[in-house]
Amino acid sequence: MEQLESYVSGNWVKGSGKPSILVNPATEEHIAEASTEGLDFGAAFQYARDVGGKALRALSFAQRGEILRALSRAIHAKRDALIEDGIANGGNTRSDAKFDIDGASGTLAYYADLGKQLGDAKFLVEGDGIQLARSPRWFGYHALVPRHGLALHINAFNFPGWGIGEKMACAILAGMPVVVKPATSTAVLAYRIAKLFVEANVLPPGAFSFIAGSPGNMLDSLSEQDVVAFTGSADTGARLRTHAGIVRGSVRLNIEADSLNSATLGPDVSAGSDTYRMFLREVMRDMTQKAGQKCTATRRIFVPEGMVNDVRDELAAMLRDVQVGNPATDGVTVGPLATASQLRDIRAGIELLAKESTFVTGNQAFTPAGVPEGKGYFVAPTLLHCTDPDAAKAVHAHEVFGPCATIVPYDGSSGRVVELIARGAGMLVGSVYSDDRAFVTDMVMGLAPYHGRLYFGSEKIADQTAGPGTVLPQSIHGGPGRAGGGEELGGQRGLALYSHRVAIQGARPILDAVLELKK
Amino acid sequence: MEQLESYVSGNWVKGSGKPSILVNPATEEHIAEASTEGLDFGAAFQYARDVGGKALRALSFAQRGEILRALSRAIHAKRDALIEDGIANGGNTRSDAKFDIDGASGTLAYYADLGKQLGDAKFLVEGDGIQLARSPRWFGYHALVPRHGLALHINAFNFPGWGIGEKMACAILAGMPVVVKPATSTAVLAYRIAKLFVEANVLPPGAFSFIAGSPGNMLDSLSEQDVVAFTGSADTGARLRTHAGIVRGSVRLNIEADSLNSATLGPDVSAGSDTYRMFLREVMRDMTQKAGQKCTATRRIFVPEGMVNDVRDELAAMLRDVQVGNPATDGVTVGPLATASQLRDIRAGIELLAKESTFVTGNQAFTPAGVPEGKGYFVAPTLLHCTDPDAAKAVHAHEVFGPCATIVPYDGSSGRVVELIARGAGMLVGSVYSDDRAFVTDMVMGLAPYHGRLYFGSEKIADQTAGPGTVLPQSIHGGPGRAGGGEELGGQRGLALYSHRVAIQGARPILDAVLELKK
Repeated sequence: MEQLESYVSGNWVKGSGKPSILVNPATEEHIAEASTEGLDFGAAFQYARDVGGKALRALSFAQRGEILRALSRAIHAKRDALIEDGIANGGNTRSDAKFDIDGASGTLAYYADLGKQLGDAKFLVEGDGIQLARSPRWFGYHALVPRHGLALHINAFNFPGWGIGEKMACAILAGMPVVVKPATSTAVLAYRIAKLFVEANVLPPGAFSFIAGSPGNMLDSLSEQDVVAFTGSADTGARLRTHAGIVRGSVRLNIEADSLNSATLGPDVSAGSDTYRMFLREVMRDMTQKAGQKCTATRRIFVPEGMVNDVRDELAAMLRDVQVGNPATDGVTVGPLATASQLRDIRAGIELLAKESTFVTGNQAFTPAGVPEGKGYFVAPTLLHCTDPDAAKAVHAHEVFGPCATIVPYDGSSGRVVELIARGAGMLVGSVYSDDRAFVTDMVMGLAPYHGRLYFGSEKIADQTAGPGTVLPQSIHGGPGRAGGGEELGGQRGLALYSHRVAIQGARPILDAVLELKK
Repeated sequence: MEQLESYVSGNWVKGSGKPSILVNPATEEHIAEASTEGLDFGAAFQYARDVGGKALRALSFAQRGEILRALSRAIHAKRDALIEDGIANGGNTRSDAKFDIDGASGTLAYYADLGKQLGDAKFLVEGDGIQLARSPRWFGYHALVPRHGLALHINAFNFPGWGIGEKMACAILAGMPVVVKPATSTAVLAYRIAKLFVEANVLPPGAFSFIAGSPGNMLDSLSEQDVVAFTGSADTGARLRTHAGIVRGSVRLNIEADSLNSATLGPDVSAGSDTYRMFLREVMRDMTQKAGQKCTATRRIFVPEGMVNDVRDELAAMLRDVQVGNPATDGVTVGPLATASQLRDIRAGIELLAKESTFVTGNQAFTPAGVPEGKGYFVAPTLLHCTDPDAAKAVHAHEVFGPCATIVPYDGSSGRVVELIARGAGMLVGSVYSDDRAFVTDMVMGLAPYHGRLYFGSEKIADQTAGPGTVLPQSIHGGPGRAGGGEELGGQRGLALYSHRVAIQGARPILDAVLELKK
């Protein structure tokens, strides 16, 4: 069986001891193993900081951008092989795997372009300077400089490709070395990408490290100039937040966690309209793409009472056309969940939701296609209908991270649906489908503080968007409260997590010369 | 004895049970008491969110700015009476008290001006919109909107006036209701200001609450749209960071904590020059102002080896002219520490430092002026000299929050002094005195990631600055690592803590209309 290696201090190394086993989630075949036992995280981290950080800070934004461009191309050149890894270890359909892999190369390319725009500077002077007192000579600036630590990227199992790309793009462009820790269960694709990155030979020594296997005690080796960017469950997020290794040095921590995302059909939208079709198509995509294992997928579908039957029947019909099974089998459109423990969690979650909702689809036995009998981590696409959302609790609080969503009726008023959506207590994305400007206005104002991103579908752009479930590098990704309180991407905003802002006060002519010279 | 009241849900209320006793730290006389026993924090917080938040969000920036202007004027109008409170309960000299009180009114006035500039908008659209895909119709914006919770301000004992002003200015202007929790020991001045604020009758109901006394279990009443801004010790900061009430909802938490600030004399500066005098004057001010109880005060004084004797002798001579005692007594220039426990901590800290340094001043018995025998929390201004900064640990890690600083020699090279300063592991402010552009350049680049603010003193501005110890609203205040990782003020940047950034995607004409209309 293939043993995945880690890349630390500029070397590929194998862990010793009992490894974690990586499987094909459609067949449960063992396909690889990984261990970090015996790795010296302290030395690896220090190498990244000392060697990698120093090298990256000596480069301009344009030069860092060129590195990202080369990494983007390295992924794209091996796209077909990577797709096979996504199918075999991620349970991805071909289309799911492309979404992940193209997301990685696309985001790297976007930040390569940004690097080019930022040009020869090595750090950013933010805004204009400002006179500090009566004398025009005493002046203040703010600068954004690379932090002198490392960026530890703890990625989620669902996007082993994109997760690497989106986090690395921002960190490397900002001038910080990265240590990538993919989720072990789906690490094959991440490992292949890591190999491509090292082979591309464009990253300075120490700028990139890769950990395959258990995190062990790596958090104990963090220090105060480091940054940790985590994507995963709210429970793990809370454990990170209170970990001594992070609390001790006020280590900067970014968390993307659970999210009860919503899609709202506006009261103005009639069955059959372009906006209506857009709504159904995008809800359907979020329920089935990646078997619903997207942090941005819609979990709650808010529908005006008079439209509930239409929406329920249309979605049920669409879900009947879905083919669940081994993504290596022709015709399969929805793959398995990524792991056995995810399957357990999702089944338990559906049970919880079903206590306060009724099944529209999903509660019947089914046979996944192309799978040895009894094998694989499959769950049927499950649509629920919650008729008493005031009494219901789980629908607003428990994220079922699979092909599952719940229809929730509302009275067609923006005030009511905002109140219901806000019960989710902090979401990554909320989508609204409406051509009524007054309704849209109310929804913008009402939903904004509870979301990292709002997405408005409407007639004129019905076939021109990537949908609410797609995270674009131009817009920030993250969300308040339950969603973790983090923020990534958003164009140049994405560099902030890896930058330190410093106020600089002094004699204007001196500072002008120093900042211009060194920028 | 006067009993301080709390202002919650629009009413002044007295706590029951055993109160905390507030004293005059120069005489140990009891002057007031405060208790929060029996207060319903949950109800108070909900009133602030529901009533105060809603009212503030309905106001424009200009209107919120007008509130701040009225609060600034309310303080200024009672400046003389407030100074007396600072002397009696804070152990402030008249000059110390003015520094605190004028800092409060000045910062409020600064943000009043900013509100006027921001005008009729109620929230901010950030930057230009951006095309998201091939179609020019699908467009993205970012907006900064007020969070829908409350801002809990946990202030430090050393600046009961300024602490209220600087935190409130940013929160109210951003559109968030505030709950002010001053340190109990010096809460008399904070209480007087709270009374003035309520009497000014310009704050909407619920926009302002005030808690006099123990925090009790108030953190358990936090929810995910709230913000906590804390100034105090790193130990308390770490307890807040891991508190279930904060972790649970990813409550946004800003911490300003311990800081081993430095002042560096450049290798080019000769004795007797304007830059040299500036350096001595400002180090001296930081050692004595507020009895050294400033989070921005210099703790480590880095001096080129050849200048150590000069600096040591000059500072010693200046410190001999200081009169420690009851600030109500004529001629006293340095007051007591604020509390008995501070006195214990500072004495223990000096002992710790003295294990790796020698005393220049401070280790002799002295009699504070105008104080009953044996009373008061006094410590002599203490200058130490550390000859082996490589072996020394406490000098770089233990903040002695009193009139105490340590001279540390270095070889005159920027590389060496940067390495020594960085051992402080994250500071609020570092000051450098030099007219050598190459040295200044190295110091900017070397020190930036370890500081919230850098201050460069030089000949041309020798008598035109407020010194490194003064926090100005134009520049950010905070620092990485040990200093807590927080950030406040910095002009419009100060609103970010209280704002939520949201990405908005949709059809361009619709979003343009909605955002323009509602902004």
